[in-house]
Amino acid sequence: MLQLYIGNKNYSSWSMRPWVLLRQAGIAFEEVPVRFDSFDANSQFKRQLKAVTPVAKVPVLVDGDITVWDSLAIAEYLAEQYPDKHLWPQDKAARARARSVVAEMHSGFSALRSHCGMNIEARLPEVGEIVWRDQPAVRADVQRLVEMWSELLDQHGGPMLFGQFSIADAFYAPVCMRLATFALPVPEHITAYVQRVQQLPGVKAWIDGALAEQDFVPFDEPYRARRG
Amino acid sequence: MLQLYIGNKNYSSWSMRPWVLLRQAGIAFEEVPVRFDSFDANSQFKRQLKAVTPVAKVPVLVDGDITVWDSLAIAEYLAEQYPDKHLWPQDKAARARARSVVAEMHSGFSALRSHCGMNIEARLPEVGEIVWRDQPAVRADVQRLVEMWSELLDQHGGPMLFGQFSIADAFYAPVCMRLATFALPVPEHITAYVQRVQQLPGVKAWIDGALAEQDFVPFDEPYRARRG
Ligand SMILES: N[C@@H](CCC(=O)N[C@@H](CS)C(=O)NCC(=O)O)C(=O)O
Ligand SMILES: N[C@@H](CCC(=O)N[C@@H](CS)C(=O)NCC(=O)O)C(=O)O
Repeated sequence: MLQLYIGNKNYSSWSMRPWVLLRQAGIAFEEVPVRFDSFDANSQFKRQLKAVTPVAKVPVLVDGDITVWDSLAIAEYLAEQYPDKHLWPQDKAARARARSVVAEMHSGFSALRSHCGMNIEARLPEVGEIVWRDQPAVRADVQRLVEMWSELLDQHGGPMLFGQFSIADAFYAPVCMRLATFALPVPEHITAYVQRVQQLPGVKAWIDGALAEQDFVPFDEPYRARRG
Repeated sequence: MLQLYIGNKNYSSWSMRPWVLLRQAGIAFEEVPVRFDSFDANSQFKRQLKAVTPVAKVPVLVDGDITVWDSLAIAEYLAEQYPDKHLWPQDKAARARARSVVAEMHSGFSALRSHCGMNIEARLPEVGEIVWRDQPAVRADVQRLVEMWSELLDQHGGPMLFGQFSIADAFYAPVCMRLATFALPVPEHITAYVQRVQQLPGVKAWIDGALAEQDFVPFDEPYRARRG
């Protein structure tokens, strides 16, 4: 069976993507959680992963003797292996656009990513307010998201970015979680999309897992000293 | 005909990838150069690109009414459109690994990328020496490259990372240029790979174009005041 190595569900935005994708597509897999103790060379985390992949980051997909690391490579691998699941949009132009927005996510949005790390169990509107006031790059990232999502939802008619659920929604799911946690100001139709994503069974299952962890990883929450 | 929008050949590492890929694969395309004047919202660069893509970054591929932005999305689009060109390795496990290392490049190696920006016409060993001394993250990035390339060259027997030329070599071509410009210390078999990449006809043609530009873009060369 496929094995997917993932980090803490509460924090690991990269892990969330392929997990949600597999779950939404109904592809059976075994989950291998690797807790974030630290990212030092001799941490438990690194030692456990070094046995599977040279990069020692999560997520990692293991399919028999094939090992795929990196969330985007995993998504392409799954799309190829399960063509009947239509993980990418079927229309050629839509697929090209979906790949563009997913690759854009993959190498972009660094301000949002670094200032508003994923933290599913937390509600941090005050932290979000300060970030919003002081970080123009975060505002620019969110503006680009709003523009992109608005255009796609409009063009394909929703409920997901390309009509039906696709890899694109899986890739933006962690961003939805960040917008919610930090209560960043977005138009109503964007909040509605965020809520639809949170209600997908695969996303709900991930959120439930995150809430059950009850873990506090200080280096993932530089803005506070403890939970709650 | 396909159109590829690119930035300055001397500096634009992201543009280099799909250009080299198209050229090496023998796929006809028209090149649309967009000079880096600045990345301000009202620069010539941004205004010219805003007409083609929402993100206003290069590279952009235009294929009739389909627009693909981002180098990785372009690579996947081309692989799909030209299956007989075998842009990805044909073996399934090798292809999964190629996608992993390409995605790893796409979202990683940020220290090398920010401290050793691509600058094809320049020879900057002194700058490289200081970076090497002061930036452990750059040393870690290079160490990972050496490990990855060594393993792949060993496993597939060269001359390219996966035997024959593939998207993986196109993606690492700009890194080869950086290693050469900044004279970063790497083992001999790695230097030999860098040289083989530089001798690929598609890479040579790009280098010739870069040398012909004779342009100096200060924000791409923070470490010196003028060329030469
Ligand atoms: N581009 C990679 C990024 C993976 C990544 O950075 N994962 C984080 C956890 S969310 C990690 O494992 N970090 C460990 C480290 O940086 O050493 C992907 O898409 O999978
Ligand atoms: N991830 C994108 C990155 C593209 C990118 O950042 N291109 C640079 C030039 S090399 C650019 O256009 N920068 C303009 C800007 O940052 O505003 C890709 O792979 O195509």
